[in-house]
Amino acid sequence: MSNADLTHFNSEGRARMVDVSEKKDTERTALAKGIVYMQPETFKRIKEGKIAKGDVLAVAQVAGVMGAKKTPDLIPMCHPLLLTSVDIDFKENEVPNEKGKCSIEVSATVKLKGQTGVEMEALTAVSIAALTIYDMCKAIDKEMSFGNVGLVRKTGGKSGTFVRKED
Amino acid sequence: MSNADLTHFNSEGRARMVDVSEKKDTERTALAKGIVYMQPETFKRIKEGKIAKGDVLAVAQVAGVMGAKKTPDLIPMCHPLLLTSVDIDFKENEVPNEKGKCSIEVSATVKLKGQTGVEMEALTAVSIAALTIYDMCKAIDKEMSFGNVGLVRKTGGKSGTFVRKED
Amino acid sequence: MSNADLTHFNSEGRARMVDVSEKKDTERTALAKGIVYMQPETFKRIKEGKIAKGDVLAVAQVAGVMGAKKTPDLIPMCHPLLLTSVDIDFKENEVPNEKGKCSIEVSATVKLKGQTGVEMEALTAVSIAALTIYDMCKAIDKEMSFGNVGLVRKTGGKSGTFVRKED
Amino acid sequence: MSNADLTHFNSEGRARMVDVSEKKDTERTALAKGIVYMQPETFKRIKEGKIAKGDVLAVAQVAGVMGAKKTPDLIPMCHPLLLTSVDIDFKENEVPNEKGKCSIEVSATVKLKGQTGVEMEALTAVSIAALTIYDMCKAIDKEMSFGNVGLVRKTGGKSGTFVRKED
Amino acid sequence: MSNADLTHFNSEGRARMVDVSEKKDTERTALAKGIVYMQPETFKRIKEGKIAKGDVLAVAQVAGVMGAKKTPDLIPMCHPLLLTSVDIDFKENEVPNEKGKCSIEVSATVKLKGQTGVEMEALTAVSIAALTIYDMCKAIDKEMSFGNVGLVRKTGGKSGTFVRKED
Amino acid sequence: MSNADLTHFNSEGRARMVDVSEKKDTERTALAKGIVYMQPETFKRIKEGKIAKGDVLAVAQVAGVMGAKKTPDLIPMCHPLLLTSVDIDFKENEVPNEKGKCSIEVSATVKLKGQTGVEMEALTAVSIAALTIYDMCKAIDKEMSFGNVGLVRKTGGKSGTFVRKED
Repeated sequence: MSNADLTHFNSEGRARMVDVSEKKDTERTALAKGIVYMQPETFKRIKEGKIAKGDVLAVAQVAGVMGAKKTPDLIPMCHPLLLTSVDIDFKENEVPNEKGKCSIEVSATVKLKGQTGVEMEALTAVSIAALTIYDMCKAIDKEMSFGNVGLVRKTGGKSGTFVRKED
Repeated sequence: MSNADLTHFNSEGRARMVDVSEKKDTERTALAKGIVYMQPETFKRIKEGKIAKGDVLAVAQVAGVMGAKKTPDLIPMCHPLLLTSVDIDFKENEVPNEKGKCSIEVSATVKLKGQTGVEMEALTAVSIAALTIYDMCKAIDKEMSFGNVGLVRKTGGKSGTFVRKED
Repeated sequence: MSNADLTHFNSEGRARMVDVSEKKDTERTALAKGIVYMQPETFKRIKEGKIAKGDVLAVAQVAGVMGAKKTPDLIPMCHPLLLTSVDIDFKENEVPNEKGKCSIEVSATVKLKGQTGVEMEALTAVSIAALTIYDMCKAIDKEMSFGNVGLVRKTGGKSGTFVRKED
Repeated sequence: MSNADLTHFNSEGRARMVDVSEKKDTERTALAKGIVYMQPETFKRIKEGKIAKGDVLAVAQVAGVMGAKKTPDLIPMCHPLLLTSVDIDFKENEVPNEKGKCSIEVSATVKLKGQTGVEMEALTAVSIAALTIYDMCKAIDKEMSFGNVGLVRKTGGKSGTFVRKED
Repeated sequence: MSNADLTHFNSEGRARMVDVSEKKDTERTALAKGIVYMQPETFKRIKEGKIAKGDVLAVAQVAGVMGAKKTPDLIPMCHPLLLTSVDIDFKENEVPNEKGKCSIEVSATVKLKGQTGVEMEALTAVSIAALTIYDMCKAIDKEMSFGNVGLVRKTGGKSGTFVRKED
Repeated sequence: MSNADLTHFNSEGRARMVDVSEKKDTERTALAKGIVYMQPETFKRIKEGKIAKGDVLAVAQVAGVMGAKKTPDLIPMCHPLLLTSVDIDFKENEVPNEKGKCSIEVSATVKLKGQTGVEMEALTAVSIAALTIYDMCKAIDKEMSFGNVGLVRKTGGKSGTFVRKED
């Protein structure tokens, strides 16, 4: 367990935007993931939509990229950052899990050269893309949910590379 | 399984904001939940912060309320809405689960009187509050994650009351 | 020529948001159009992209819908409005014009029930969709342009129905 | 015709924010233009407004500058950028054209030192300024339109200087 | 002294957006004021700018109107509202006060028909207009300041009319 | 008195975003202050809230930090900036002044390394925090006001260090 402080609080215990003035500009990347669970029928219709018309994932992709850019507007103590790349991928898990749900895994990769990392941008992109899939399909499947949202890997910065342990 | 269409697509198969002009103004509520998982040490520090100074959950609460208001900016096909109430609650689960993680359950309740529901507003509030908890603690616990984000209950509108089945 | 005042100015001649307090809620619609001009090769690649992968117009559609919602943030004296419907269509003009350019016509239809019209929302949606097509293709065709952006039809409100004269 | 790819799409054919991590910071400028067409009476009133009170163009200028800053919020795949200069000019064409319309030409010049260009910022500034002129005058002239929106010149970056061909 | 609760806190003592679901739609207005203090030379140059070119107050006016619309984005527990009117006035106080400062008084009047009042919208409009005057002149007068920002009058709603006592 | 121009105006006298392309990146800080005046009972309840539950100042702090980041969205001619630090402090003045009002002094410190200063970001943070205190307490004290909003100190940039003279 790290002894690092909860650096988002100032000497009075109130929240602040952490001072990164002394940090160096380094190249930084972050990869985050999450999974959207749904009924097999919903999954099938998203897939069909993709092949023919009505591409739910195309809308979710745009929402995710735009969401990454909105991170400092949404997460109070995040720094404004000059993202140099945002990419989102979807992996379809067609075989239902033990609860009978199919799923779509959402991944977001974000890069920049800057004084602080892009973990929150990647996590926000995943969350907004997942919420958008939910929104586009909620008329037919209100039991959808999403989870396992977390950071998978990051590189750059003083703390260096982090890779999430397998669950 | 509902036969309802994926109403977010127009006759050419492209995404649109669903026409709700003919819908009646009714009172609508939505309750959504999600769970943030963390190491026991992280959980302990959040709790201590709450008692003394440095209240992670106070920041997450503000972020969640503001996030609910930003929903139409974030989720492409959501309608702008006049929310009349947003409230967020946190429930602390101090006993570690089978993976050794403590957790904080985030709930958001949103209300309005209008032509379309507030499910996405409640889900967005939960997601932004969860992301904010992550951001405030990521310096000490990069393995945090959140999940089980879903709609628990909604009332109002043509489709009436929905209550999520227990998993 | 109408004798109506430039109502956006107050008694001191400064800009204001026009007072619509006394106006009735009526159903209002607006249809706006614009045309994006491009080289035939660019046109062909957009079309191919649509059939297979890489759908420029899908991104432009999402941008246009989101742009309609941002109108009061962009146009200083516009009122915040509860849009009930936004839909965007594209019409492809494959035969090059007298300057050798193919084109894509962008139409946006916006509705609400409210105290003021949605002309600016429809025009903004068209403009943002056109700008997005430009952005997605500018690496291969910097000579693109867009024009003929105007209101085609509106209904509702005190001034009633307006239909643009043919050029 | 350039062989360059439509670089806004990833290997799966979905939209992404192009990776500019490897690009160098260079000084970049872009000049974009567009023209707002209107009835001579509308033109006259804008001009009078400017001399005395009620300056339509002053509002459009502010809207255009603010619009340039909002580009990454509006155009999905645009990078956030640190604009170092935004300037907008208006040129009045008092002599009616063949359709009997007077016009105001809107130009926007944007600068930055960064990894990607400011073409979209200049084009967005022009579009938002044009939409604002429309909004301020639409009570007296619903037949207004704007067009010829395009990039006139850009400098900097790997592709170097571009100057639009005369029509 | 009112016994009313600090209604912005829920039963756990955390901030929430107050539930106004049960409130009636009434017509509401609010008038707020503030004063920007500056050196006589700065005041003179603003005045000259207004007569000839370079109108600081025109920019401040636009910023104030747009600021009123952004209130729910800025003030965490404010409700989104459909403002029907925003107007801003400036009153110039040419005679220096006891500290040798001239001043410009900024007033904002906001209206809507809705379930909650527009006090914060009027106060935000005044603050953003004052900050904009500051920004436009800070190159020549860094000692500027603004103050006396408060609500002057409000009408409508359950608590009815309020008029600020004279100081 | 400085002879510097009102640099926010272009050669036609219209507002522009000042060109800072040629300025060097230097480390810059700004400290701004303002004071919120209130009845002693209001002051007491804020203090009690802080000790137990219902922390008005925690909400104001988050709003102030987020407000600093929104400065280029609010103040028309401000440049987008990569803030590296935002911190807000509150100082409670328990002894009523000559008008019988207690007060809370709001300070904001903002830093960046960049081509232009952060004075407006610090002033905006103070204003938004003050407005939030007002909003949270207005149900019990509509006579609240805030003032003395000004720059206290800045460092960095071509004009170097500025320290406000004592009043």
